[in-house]
Amino acid sequence: MTTEARRTEEPARTRLRPLGPGQARIVGGFLAERQRVNREATIPHGFEQLGRAGPLDNLRLAAGGDGRYRARADTSGATFPFLDSDVYKWLEAVGWELGRGPDPGLAAAADQAIGLVAAAQRPDGYLNSYVQVVGDGTPYRDLAWGHELYCIGHLIQAAVAWHRALDDDRLLAIAVRAADRIERDLGPAGREGVDGHPNIEMALVELTRVTGDKRYLALAARLLDLRGRGLLGEGRFGAAYWQDHLPVREAATVAGHAVRQLYLDCGAVDVAVELGDEALLAAVRRRFEEMAATRAYLTGGLGSRHRDEAFGDPFELPPDRAYAETCAAIASVMLGWRLLLATGEARYADAVERALYNGVLSGVSLGGTRFFYVNPLQRRTHRAWEPPGHGERAPWYPCACCPPNLMRLLSSWQQYLASSDDGGVQLHQYASADLEAEVAGEAVRLAVRSGYPWDGRVTVEVTQTPGRPWTLSLRVPGWSRSATLSGPAGAGPRSAGPGAAELPRRWAVGDTVTLELDLPVRVTEPDPRVDAVRGCVALERGPLVYCLESADLPPGTELEALRWDPGRAPAAAPRPDLGEAVVGIAVPLVGPGPDGPAALSAGAVPYFAWANRGAGAMRVWIPR
Amino acid sequence: MTTEARRTEEPARTRLRPLGPGQARIVGGFLAERQRVNREATIPHGFEQLGRAGPLDNLRLAAGGDGRYRARADTSGATFPFLDSDVYKWLEAVGWELGRGPDPGLAAAADQAIGLVAAAQRPDGYLNSYVQVVGDGTPYRDLAWGHELYCIGHLIQAAVAWHRALDDDRLLAIAVRAADRIERDLGPAGREGVDGHPNIEMALVELTRVTGDKRYLALAARLLDLRGRGLLGEGRFGAAYWQDHLPVREAATVAGHAVRQLYLDCGAVDVAVELGDEALLAAVRRRFEEMAATRAYLTGGLGSRHRDEAFGDPFELPPDRAYAETCAAIASVMLGWRLLLATGEARYADAVERALYNGVLSGVSLGGTRFFYVNPLQRRTHRAWEPPGHGERAPWYPCACCPPNLMRLLSSWQQYLASSDDGGVQLHQYASADLEAEVAGEAVRLAVRSGYPWDGRVTVEVTQTPGRPWTLSLRVPGWSRSATLSGPAGAGPRSAGPGAAELPRRWAVGDTVTLELDLPVRVTEPDPRVDAVRGCVALERGPLVYCLESADLPPGTELEALRWDPGRAPAAAPRPDLGEAVVGIAVPLVGPGPDGPAALSAGAVPYFAWANRGAGAMRVWIPR
Repeated sequence: MTTEARRTEEPARTRLRPLGPGQARIVGGFLAERQRVNREATIPHGFEQLGRAGPLDNLRLAAGGDGRYRARADTSGATFPFLDSDVYKWLEAVGWELGRGPDPGLAAAADQAIGLVAAAQRPDGYLNSYVQVVGDGTPYRDLAWGHELYCIGHLIQAAVAWHRALDDDRLLAIAVRAADRIERDLGPAGREGVDGHPNIEMALVELTRVTGDKRYLALAARLLDLRGRGLLGEGRFGAAYWQDHLPVREAATVAGHAVRQLYLDCGAVDVAVELGDEALLAAVRRRFEEMAATRAYLTGGLGSRHRDEAFGDPFELPPDRAYAETCAAIASVMLGWRLLLATGEARYADAVERALYNGVLSGVSLGGTRFFYVNPLQRRTHRAWEPPGHGERAPWYPCACCPPNLMRLLSSWQQYLASSDDGGVQLHQYASADLEAEVAGEAVRLAVRSGYPWDGRVTVEVTQTPGRPWTLSLRVPGWSRSATLSGPAGAGPRSAGPGAAELPRRWAVGDTVTLELDLPVRVTEPDPRVDAVRGCVALERGPLVYCLESADLPPGTELEALRWDPGRAPAAAPRPDLGEAVVGIAVPLVGPGPDGPAALSAGAVPYFAWANRGAGAMRVWIPR
Repeated sequence: MTTEARRTEEPARTRLRPLGPGQARIVGGFLAERQRVNREATIPHGFEQLGRAGPLDNLRLAAGGDGRYRARADTSGATFPFLDSDVYKWLEAVGWELGRGPDPGLAAAADQAIGLVAAAQRPDGYLNSYVQVVGDGTPYRDLAWGHELYCIGHLIQAAVAWHRALDDDRLLAIAVRAADRIERDLGPAGREGVDGHPNIEMALVELTRVTGDKRYLALAARLLDLRGRGLLGEGRFGAAYWQDHLPVREAATVAGHAVRQLYLDCGAVDVAVELGDEALLAAVRRRFEEMAATRAYLTGGLGSRHRDEAFGDPFELPPDRAYAETCAAIASVMLGWRLLLATGEARYADAVERALYNGVLSGVSLGGTRFFYVNPLQRRTHRAWEPPGHGERAPWYPCACCPPNLMRLLSSWQQYLASSDDGGVQLHQYASADLEAEVAGEAVRLAVRSGYPWDGRVTVEVTQTPGRPWTLSLRVPGWSRSATLSGPAGAGPRSAGPGAAELPRRWAVGDTVTLELDLPVRVTEPDPRVDAVRGCVALERGPLVYCLESADLPPGTELEALRWDPGRAPAAAPRPDLGEAVVGIAVPLVGPGPDGPAALSAGAVPYFAWANRGAGAMRVWIPR
C-alpha cells in the first residue's frame, strides 16, 4: 500500500522518503473520525461479510474442507475467481490497524483468517482457492482472467503490512513461498506470461524491499516488460482493456480498465525508482499528466465507461454514467503518492488530496458499513427501472474489491501525510497529527493541528529537532487562491502561492508555524471540452467538491428543475446534521414557482457525504 | 416484418390495413437507390459473409456434416448461439427481393440456404444448430440466453415473406414444423417458459395469419402473459434487461435491452389487434409515448447504454456514448408501423420516418457493404486507444444481427408507404412509387412522384379508382412548419398542418394532388432536460438530421474547437459528392483564427451519410 522504510542495500531513487507506519499518527479531526469509523465499524463489518459471502470458506475448502465453493456470489452467472484477494486486503487493513493500536477482537479475527490462508497454501507454495477447488489445480491456465498473480499481489501487500506495522511475519512466510513459486514458474527460467489484472508488480517490489531478495524486483521488471506483447490476447474488450496493447514504456495515454492501468503504473513507478529507470518513470508521468488533464472527474474519479470499467475518450466525462470506481480513486491515490515521492512535485499531492476527499470517501457511508462501487456525479429523480433497494449503498458486493480496498487505505492514511529527505520534512496532507521523521539520520518531531478540511488553519509545532538547519516544507494546495504563512518566532504573515512553501531554518523546540488557507466557496466552470457538463457550474470549498441532493430541497421540488442563479453568491453554512464541524454550502438557485421562475436557496453537501439519506437525486454540476 | 393481408377469418382490430407486397413499388428517387444498393450490393455481400462467418456451415453441421462449429466468431470468448437467425433474416430479405423482381443469382443462393435449413431440421421439428451441434440436443436448457425461440421467430418471418411475396412455401413447411414443436413443448400442454430475447411472439401471430391456425396466436399470447413472472431470473443485468421485471401489461415504461423491449412490444401489438385486447394495446402505446418523449435520440436512435445495450434514465441521451443499435432503430420502425396500423395516428408514421432516414440508414454505408452496429451522435477527434481500423464501418460483425436486419427492412420498405381502410387510402411515407390498394373491395391505383427527402414536392395521381367517393389521406409530417396542398382539378393551394390531410372526393382517373412541404433548414434546440447536449443546437431539414464531419473542415481544424454562430443563418447547399440530389447544409461557425475567434462555414451532411469518408470526428449537436 505504501512505499516504505527499506531494507535493501541501495535506497530507491525517489526524491522523498516515506515515513514509517509508526512515525505518523492522526490524533484528531475529520480524518481521525474517518479512521475511527473504519476501525470500529467498517473492518469488523468486513470480516462478517467475508464470512457470509464465501471468501473465508473458499480458503477452508482449499485447505481440504467440505462445502460448496462460492465464486458466484450473485445470481448473475458471473464467475469471480479472485475472492481470495478480499481476504488479503482485509488482512492488510487489520495489519495497519493493529499497528495503530491493539484490538483483541480484530487480532482474533485476523488470526483466524491467517490460519485459513496458511492451511490453504499447497506444499509447493501455490495458493489460489479457485484453482485448487474449482479448477484442476494446474496454475496459470487462464492468466488473462484468472487473477492468480493479482491475488498473490494482495497477499504480499498484506504480509508487508504485518511485517512493517507489527513485525509479525506469519503472512510474510506464506507470501514468500507463494512468490517463490511464481518466480520459478514465470521468472527467467519459466514461461512468459503476465496477469490480466496488474497488481503483483508493485507487491513484488515491496517484497524485495522487506526481504532484500532482488529476484522479486527482477520478476516485477520482467512482468512489466512482457506487457504489451500480446500475451493476453484481445479478450472481450480488446487488448487495451488490460494494457496489453502497447509496451508499458510506449503507451502515451492511459487506456482500458482504469484500476488495471493505475495498478500497473504503480508497479512501473516502483520498478523505475528501484532500478533508476528514468524512461519508465517518464512514461508513467506522461500518462498521469494526460489522465489528470483530460480524463479525471472533478471528484478525482476515474473511468468513464460502465461496459469495460474503462477510461473513455479525452474529455468524455459524463456525470450520470461516470463509472469512477472507488478502487480507481484509491489506485490513483497510490499512484499519485508514488509519483510524489519519486519527483517531489506538489501537484501529485494535490491529486491525492482531491481523490481522497471526494472520489474515495464517497465510496463508504458515513456510518462505515455501506458502500458504493460506482461513484457518479449525477443521479436523476426519475431513473431507469431498477429493483427496490437498487441504487442505494450496499453492505457488500458480489465483486467486493472496493470495500476492503477502502479499509486498507484508511487504516494506512497517516502514512500519506508527510515525507522526509536529507534536507528536511515535507507536509503534504493536513490533519491533526503527530509526526516523526529522520532528517540526515536525526529525528524531527512535529505536532500538526488543524480543523482541516472544514477550517483552513494549520499550525505546526516543532517538538524535537536536530541542532543543524533543515527545511520544513508545507504544501499550499493547487486550489488555493490566498494562503498566508505566519511564524516561526513572531515572523509576520506573508502570502504563499500553490506549491511547496519552504522554510529553511535552524529550528528550535517550540517553534510554531501557521499556514492559513483561505477557504472561500469556489464556483468552478468546467473545461469547455467536457461536452457532458457544458453550461454548468460546480461548487468547491478547500479540497471538497459539493453536490445538491434532493433530501435538501423543498418538498415536491425536483432537482432537475433547478438552475444556478448567477445573481446571488453561494455561502458556507454549517451542517451539523452530517457530522461535527461539517460545512455545507447554501446555493442560490432559480426554480419553478407558483408565478413563474422563483429564487430559492438549497444546501449543498460535500460529495463524499452524499447518499446517506436514501436513494434520492444528486448532482455535482448545476446548470446555469 | 410487416403486418399483411390475411387469411384468418376475422380481420385484426387495426384501424388501417397494410398493402400487400405486390401492391407497392418504389420506382425512383432516394429510396429506390437505397433499395437498389441493398439488392445489388448488400444482400449478395451478406450471403458471402454468412458463408465466411460460419452460420451456413453451422447448419451444415446440424445436418450431419463435418467441421468445427463457429459460435465464437471473434476472439472475445463470447458465445453466440443465435447465428442461425442471421441466415433467416437474410432469407427474409431475399424473399421480399425476389418478390420485387427475379434474380437468378439471389434465387440460387437462397435455394442453397433453404436446403441447409431443411436438412438441419430434426425429424421432431426441432431446429437450432447450436443446441444440435454444440449442446446435447436437449431443447430449452437455457431459455434465458439460448435464443432458440428467437431464431425460430426469424425463421417464421422468413417463411411468411416467401409465402406472401412468392407463394413459395418451402420455408413455411419447415417453420410450421418448428413452431408445432415449440407449441407442444411450451404451449398449454407443455412447460412454462419464455425466451430471453423476444421475437417469436410477433412471428407466431404472423404464422396464424398465413396458416389460419390459431394455436400459434394463442402461444404468442401465452408467452406474453408468462413474461414478468421471474421465469428468466436476474441474469447478468437484472430482470428488466429481458423485460421479465413486470408483466407486459403493467410495465409503465420501456426498460432494459432496447431491441428486446421493442420486439416484445411488436408482439404485444400483434396479439392485441388479433384478440381485440385494448388494455394490452394501451400498455404498449403508453410505453411508446414515454420512450419517444424521454429516451429517443434526435436520430430516432434508441438505447443509451453500452453495458447492457439498454434504455437509460429518462433524458439520459449522451451523444458520444449513444448505443442506438441499428437493430433498435429497425425495431422501432416495426413497432411504429404496427401502432400506426392499430390506431391510424400520424405521429407513429412520424416516428417511423425519423428512424428510417436517420438511425436506420446510418447503419449501412452508402456503398452498401459496410455497417455500423452502434450509431453515436458524436465521435471525437481524439479518442480512447483503439486498434487500427477500429471505429470504422465493418464488413460484418461477430454478432451480426444488424446487417441482415437492414437487408430485410430495406427490401420490404415499399410496404411501409401506405395503407388502406374501407374509407380510402392513406399515404404515410413519401417516395416515387406506384401503389395499389383495396378500398371496400375495389381497386385504387396511385402514382406518387417526389424528389423526397431532398425536395418537398409530392404529386399523387389517381390512375385507377372506383366510381364512388373515397378519401385520400396524406400525412403532413410533424416537423412541417409550412405545407400546402393543391389540386385535384385546379383546386388552389391551401395550407395543411401536421397530421393527416384528408381529401374525401369522388375521384377520377387523372386527378392529381400536389403536397408541397417547405424544407427550410431547422435549427433545433434540445429539450433542456437532456443534460448531455445542454447549450447545443442541431440542424435538420425535412426528415433528415445533419451532422458536421471533420472531412468537411479546413485542414488542421478540430471539430471540437468550433462553435455555432447564431449571427448568421445556415443554408441548404447541394452535395453531389455524396450522391445524386443530396442536399447538405452550410453551417455558420466560429473557430480559432490566427488573430482570435474567426467566422467560418462548414458543410454538414445528412447523418445517415456519415462515416463514409474515413474514421474522422463527427457531431450532430453543435455547441453554441
